[in-house]
Amino acid sequence: METTIIDLTQKDALENSSCLSATDATTAILSKEMKPSEVLLECIANIERHEEKVGAWAFMDKERAYHKAVEFDKKSPGGPLFGIPFGIKDNIDTHDMPTEYGTSIYQANQPSRDASCVGGLRSANAIPLGKTICTEFAHRAPGKTANPWNINNTPGGSSSGSAAAVASGMVPIAIGTQTTGSVIRPAAYCGVIGYKPTYGDFNLSGVLANTPSFDTLGFFSKTLEDLVLIRRAVLDNSIPSLIEGNLKNISIGIVAKPYWDDLCDSNIDMIEQIERLLSKAGARIQKFDGGGAFNDLEQIGMNISGYEFARTLSHERRYFYNRLSPILRDGRMADGIKIDYSQYVLSIQAMEKSRLILDDAMCKFDFVICPSAASAAPLGLHETGSASFNMAWTWLHTPVVTLPIALDTQTGLPLGLQMVGKRHQDDKLLAHAGAVLKYLFK
Amino acid sequence: METTIIDLTQKDALENSSCLSATDATTAILSKEMKPSEVLLECIANIERHEEKVGAWAFMDKERAYHKAVEFDKKSPGGPLFGIPFGIKDNIDTHDMPTEYGTSIYQANQPSRDASCVGGLRSANAIPLGKTICTEFAHRAPGKTANPWNINNTPGGSSSGSAAAVASGMVPIAIGTQTTGSVIRPAAYCGVIGYKPTYGDFNLSGVLANTPSFDTLGFFSKTLEDLVLIRRAVLDNSIPSLIEGNLKNISIGIVAKPYWDDLCDSNIDMIEQIERLLSKAGARIQKFDGGGAFNDLEQIGMNISGYEFARTLSHERRYFYNRLSPILRDGRMADGIKIDYSQYVLSIQAMEKSRLILDDAMCKFDFVICPSAASAAPLGLHETGSASFNMAWTWLHTPVVTLPIALDTQTGLPLGLQMVGKRHQDDKLLAHAGAVLKYLFK
Repeated sequence: METTIIDLTQKDALENSSCLSATDATTAILSKEMKPSEVLLECIANIERHEEKVGAWAFMDKERAYHKAVEFDKKSPGGPLFGIPFGIKDNIDTHDMPTEYGTSIYQANQPSRDASCVGGLRSANAIPLGKTICTEFAHRAPGKTANPWNINNTPGGSSSGSAAAVASGMVPIAIGTQTTGSVIRPAAYCGVIGYKPTYGDFNLSGVLANTPSFDTLGFFSKTLEDLVLIRRAVLDNSIPSLIEGNLKNISIGIVAKPYWDDLCDSNIDMIEQIERLLSKAGARIQKFDGGGAFNDLEQIGMNISGYEFARTLSHERRYFYNRLSPILRDGRMADGIKIDYSQYVLSIQAMEKSRLILDDAMCKFDFVICPSAASAAPLGLHETGSASFNMAWTWLHTPVVTLPIALDTQTGLPLGLQMVGKRHQDDKLLAHAGAVLKYLFK
Repeated sequence: METTIIDLTQKDALENSSCLSATDATTAILSKEMKPSEVLLECIANIERHEEKVGAWAFMDKERAYHKAVEFDKKSPGGPLFGIPFGIKDNIDTHDMPTEYGTSIYQANQPSRDASCVGGLRSANAIPLGKTICTEFAHRAPGKTANPWNINNTPGGSSSGSAAAVASGMVPIAIGTQTTGSVIRPAAYCGVIGYKPTYGDFNLSGVLANTPSFDTLGFFSKTLEDLVLIRRAVLDNSIPSLIEGNLKNISIGIVAKPYWDDLCDSNIDMIEQIERLLSKAGARIQKFDGGGAFNDLEQIGMNISGYEFARTLSHERRYFYNRLSPILRDGRMADGIKIDYSQYVLSIQAMEKSRLILDDAMCKFDFVICPSAASAAPLGLHETGSASFNMAWTWLHTPVVTLPIALDTQTGLPLGLQMVGKRHQDDKLLAHAGAVLKYLFK
């Protein structure tokens, strides 16, 4: 057996690397079992234990966070995330902490306002602990972060620090962004839950753009209930609680394409085991081929991504060209400059059509599954792995969640199960994810 | 007769209030008839003549612009807009000029990078002259700008300063943004050309969001050829030159709905005259009702706008609630906070459907026309007029251009003809606009 199905949310990545989930901490604070400052000190203890090895943070302000927590100790609880510490990917603006976009060009850069999501989380009484490492402009050149499960392996990118910080118990929840596979892949590599919502639901004001047609906010946590709290905080208070769905008689699609050939044996084994288990639970499982939505998708998506990214960074192209990494400058940016406007428009139109095709193809399914990445986290910190299993869902705007439900037996590294929902049916997707976790582990 | 059809691009709003178009200035510079510094001094002369009355600028750096122009005097011309001065709406970030978003909250706020469009224009060798007045957060509370045609009347908003600056010859071109009617309306009120491209074509990185689902960059000029130069500069160099289309046998739709009832007599007269003239030119003209795309549109659009705007400004809600204007805080923001997530999602889905319906309905037309606003610029500077004739096109993502082709006989104020094209067919729309101007005035 290449793969062990196991609930990684119950297993430490490093020794003593778990902290309370946001949901459990909120309950403990409400029932006065814990004070907000005690929750924070648990996080800080994990930071002190692990940060030197993991390198999840670009900036941290433990003192201000502690001061805020002590202030909350004296108040009666209010808001969906009262006293919960969180991490913020460093391409997301904060008015009181520097925001460096993963590049020395913006060293000590201080924005004047909080991004919309940061404002929402603060108003829900969550406590920002710091900024997490982001690859250069959320593209591919990695920062210092290592994978908590094995510090010789990449944590994935571009939301490297947010994934690693949650995996090593430094914060229960963290924000990231996904333009290709930047939330789901690092979450899978680091053995935590990652969630990329339906495109457009979460306001991106104050988040540095990469490819505006694809950029999506995302979240890392150790429980699905935590994602509901974040959704409440950032969207509004009307989000329903997690009701675990039933697996009996539901229809699940297994993606046969695209990129199935890339899969490592352990992921193939994981999917086969999951297929057997979900069938046993009463689900009807069929192959899912996207009904044509994946045709030429990679080329179309790369055209859009290159065109937009090269223009997003027009300031940096003009003033800091020589300080861009070769992989960015000579890679996607150079490719994007070559794409002309008419080619871009054709790609945008083709992508819009593919979204409608996928909507149709998903009609008869409750959700679709596939691995969250081709393999477990690759060895080495010089690159962040492939987004080939994520790009289609990001570009086609569907909500996605990755569940940390398996270990690669050979390397001992986490594997993620990716669940894909229909556009705008995020709450349903999370409910089904809850049913899957419950069936597998409870 | 309520209305005189007249080419307002050839008529001064104030005495001595015209400057060379970007196209003419470029030609003059290329042929060495003029130096870039002379083009700039012409703009500065108009600023000195009119700025005290018009109040178009939030910030100006004449000296730096002059320094840059003198530098260009010594160079051989290159780039689509070599030596052309331009204005930038003050909700668009500039790394070397403050950006105040139309509110005292951000007094002297200094961004660290240029917005994508500013970077593009600089790299095309255009010269930024300053930041133009923007209503508060590009919503409704007006700044100090007056209408150059009559300083007792509003210039429209939210891109008030950009429209007024071009109308009074302070710059040949200026950038604005439109979320409801913020480019087309002020352009019509100020008697200049305004252009709102297909949603998504122009990168908004570095532009303060209002409603991300609708926000679109836009441009002001005195000629259509100038718009082509701007498109070349910001999109890429593959944009074709303006080839004036032919009006013979083309199909033009006249919008009968929505909001036709609001129209003032002079605009009804304008549209009737234009209908006769275009028929005489050989065009086939039919009523256009949108095929159902306008059903419930105002409610759906306001749901989206309110929901997103309230969340865009989560930082300001948290820290500066009392410094927001009543019209923003108790108006759209309060409305938006009340809209829950499920209502928002239903609105987003309905709007997506309406876009496809409009695409279908526009199939058999080359373009669609209607007035650019309900009336000429209203009296008073306390409000910026109604966007009722613009919102549908902005929300449905179609490209729009307004042509300054009529004067309200009674008030002597400009009226605009709004031309609406199909999504992603901006070049065709501008070509048809060229044909209309040519037929009417040449």
